[in-house]
Amino acid sequence: MPFTPGFTGSVLDRVEIERLAPDIVPRLLAEGDALFLDMPDYLPAADESGLLWTAVPGDIPPEQLVLLGRIAGRPRFTRIAPDLLGGRRTPAVSALIEALSAGDATTYAVARSLLDWHARHRFCAFCGHASDLARAGWGRLCPNCGTEHFPRTDPVVIMLAEHERGPQARVLVGRQPTFPPGRYSALAGFLEVGESIEGAVARELAEEAGVRAGAIRYVASQPWPFPSQLMIACIAEVADPTVTLDMNELEDARWVDRDEVFAALAGDESAPFQAPPPYAIANTLLRAWAEGA
Amino acid sequence: MPFTPGFTGSVLDRVEIERLAPDIVPRLLAEGDALFLDMPDYLPAADESGLLWTAVPGDIPPEQLVLLGRIAGRPRFTRIAPDLLGGRRTPAVSALIEALSAGDATTYAVARSLLDWHARHRFCAFCGHASDLARAGWGRLCPNCGTEHFPRTDPVVIMLAEHERGPQARVLVGRQPTFPPGRYSALAGFLEVGESIEGAVARELAEEAGVRAGAIRYVASQPWPFPSQLMIACIAEVADPTVTLDMNELEDARWVDRDEVFAALAGDESAPFQAPPPYAIANTLLRAWAEGA
Repeated sequence: MPFTPGFTGSVLDRVEIERLAPDIVPRLLAEGDALFLDMPDYLPAADESGLLWTAVPGDIPPEQLVLLGRIAGRPRFTRIAPDLLGGRRTPAVSALIEALSAGDATTYAVARSLLDWHARHRFCAFCGHASDLARAGWGRLCPNCGTEHFPRTDPVVIMLAEHERGPQARVLVGRQPTFPPGRYSALAGFLEVGESIEGAVARELAEEAGVRAGAIRYVASQPWPFPSQLMIACIAEVADPTVTLDMNELEDARWVDRDEVFAALAGDESAPFQAPPPYAIANTLLRAWAEGA
Repeated sequence: MPFTPGFTGSVLDRVEIERLAPDIVPRLLAEGDALFLDMPDYLPAADESGLLWTAVPGDIPPEQLVLLGRIAGRPRFTRIAPDLLGGRRTPAVSALIEALSAGDATTYAVARSLLDWHARHRFCAFCGHASDLARAGWGRLCPNCGTEHFPRTDPVVIMLAEHERGPQARVLVGRQPTFPPGRYSALAGFLEVGESIEGAVARELAEEAGVRAGAIRYVASQPWPFPSQLMIACIAEVADPTVTLDMNELEDARWVDRDEVFAALAGDESAPFQAPPPYAIANTLLRAWAEGA
C-alpha cells in the first residue's frame, strides 16, 4: 500500500553528484536563471500560490549561499544568515505547511533542516575552531584541523501498539502534557546508538507504556524538519494490553478501535480524541492502520 | 518473517530513565557489583568466551566513565580515554565481531558508537568551547553556552534493486573499488536531510546505478558501529534493468538470481561473487530476498 506522509512529495533534484564540484555555486549562478528562497527566521517567503522564488540577490556573500538543488531544471538557493540561531516550530510555520503543496512542503523541509544545522554547528566539534560552510551548503569544513562535518539527521521511531487483530483490533494512543487539548498521537522516541529500528520500538513501548512488543512491522517514513528528524513509523503487536504509563513522558494513554480512529481523522465532534495534523506521520500511521496496514 | 541482522541481539538494559538521575554514576558504583569493559583504541577486552568484564578500576576519573546500562542486573561501564580519537574498523575488530555472540556484539556496538562520538565531539559545535561528558555518557554539556549535545546516529539506506518477481527474479549487487577481491554487495548511501527512507532509496539507485525504483519494501535494520550508522535495508522493484554505473561509487554491478545468491551466501567456490560478512545487514538482506522477502 502506498502512503504519502507529509514532506515526502519531493520535486527537488538534489544534484548530489553535480554539487561535489568545488566551483558549483559560481557555475550555477552563471547559468543566469537561478532562483532564491528567502527564509528569515525559518519562515519562508510564500503566498497563496506557494513558496515565493526570486532572483538570487547580488549582495549575498558566497559563503552564505546554500544550494538546495534544481527544480524544473533551475538552480535553487537559500541563505544562512550569519546571525541565525536554531529555531523551533512556530504557529505561523505550522499554518504555512498545511497550505503548501506536497512539493513545496518538502523543499521547505530540506531548506529548513539545512539552515538549522548550520546555525547550530558553526564550530568544529573536534577542535573547537570556527568552521566554514562547504560543499555548497551540504557540509562544513574546519580550516584548523581539516575535519569535515555533514548535516545531521536523527532517527525517531513512532509507533502504534496493536492489541488483537481483525474486528477487535485496537491501538494505543498517548497524550503528552504539551499537546493541544484533546490531542492524542502515536508514541515516539529517539533511536539510540547501537539500536535497530525494531529494538527502539520495543524499548520505547516498554519505557513509555509498559507494554511488551511482539512482531513489529514497518509502515512508512518521513523527514521532520524541526529541526531534522527521520520519522520511522511502525506497528507493534502486543499480547497484553495492560498499560503502565511513564508519567514523565505521557499524561494519558488509551486504546482506540478502528471506528474511533476514523472519527478522529475525520475531525468528528464525537471522536474520542483529536488526531495529529495531516503533515505529521502519526496521522498517516493512524490512517494506514485503520485502512488495514 | 523475522530476520536477525548483526548487532541486534541486545542483552543490554539501557536504563534510559534511571540514567537521567544526576548522581546515577556514583549511585551505581556504590552498588558494588558494577562491571567494566576496557576498549583501548576500540578493541574490547575479550577471549574465546566473549567480552571480558572486570571490576571498575578505581583510578578512572568520573568524567571518563560511560554507563552502558545493565546486563543481568549488573551496571556496566566503559571509558572514554582523554586522548582517544575517532576510529576505523580494523581487521582485528572484524575478526572479533565474527567470534562474538549476538548479545556481546550488540553491547560492543553501543560502547563503540558512544566512545567514538565523544572522541569526535569534545567541543561545542554551537560556541566552540570545550564540552563536558554529561548524562552518564549519553550526552555532552557545554559549560560556556549551556547547549546540550546528544550522540549522533546517521541513517543509511541499503537496498537491492529487484527485476521481475518469481522464478525469473534477479537483484542488483555492486562492487566498490575498496572491497576485498570478488566481493559484491547491496548498494547503499547516506540518507540526506529532508528525505524519507523511500526517497533516499530511489535517489541512491538512480544516482549509483541509473535505475528507476518502483514499489519499495522495507526488510530489516541494524546499527552499524563504524562509527554510528543506522542501516535500513529495503528492496526496490525496477521495471527496466538497464544499469548506468556512477563510476565514482562503483566499479562494477551485476544482476544475480536466487541460486547465485544462495551460492554466494554459502561461500561456494562456484559462486559468481563473494557475499558480505554475516554481521553486515547486506548479508541479511540478500538472504531475506533469496528466501522470499
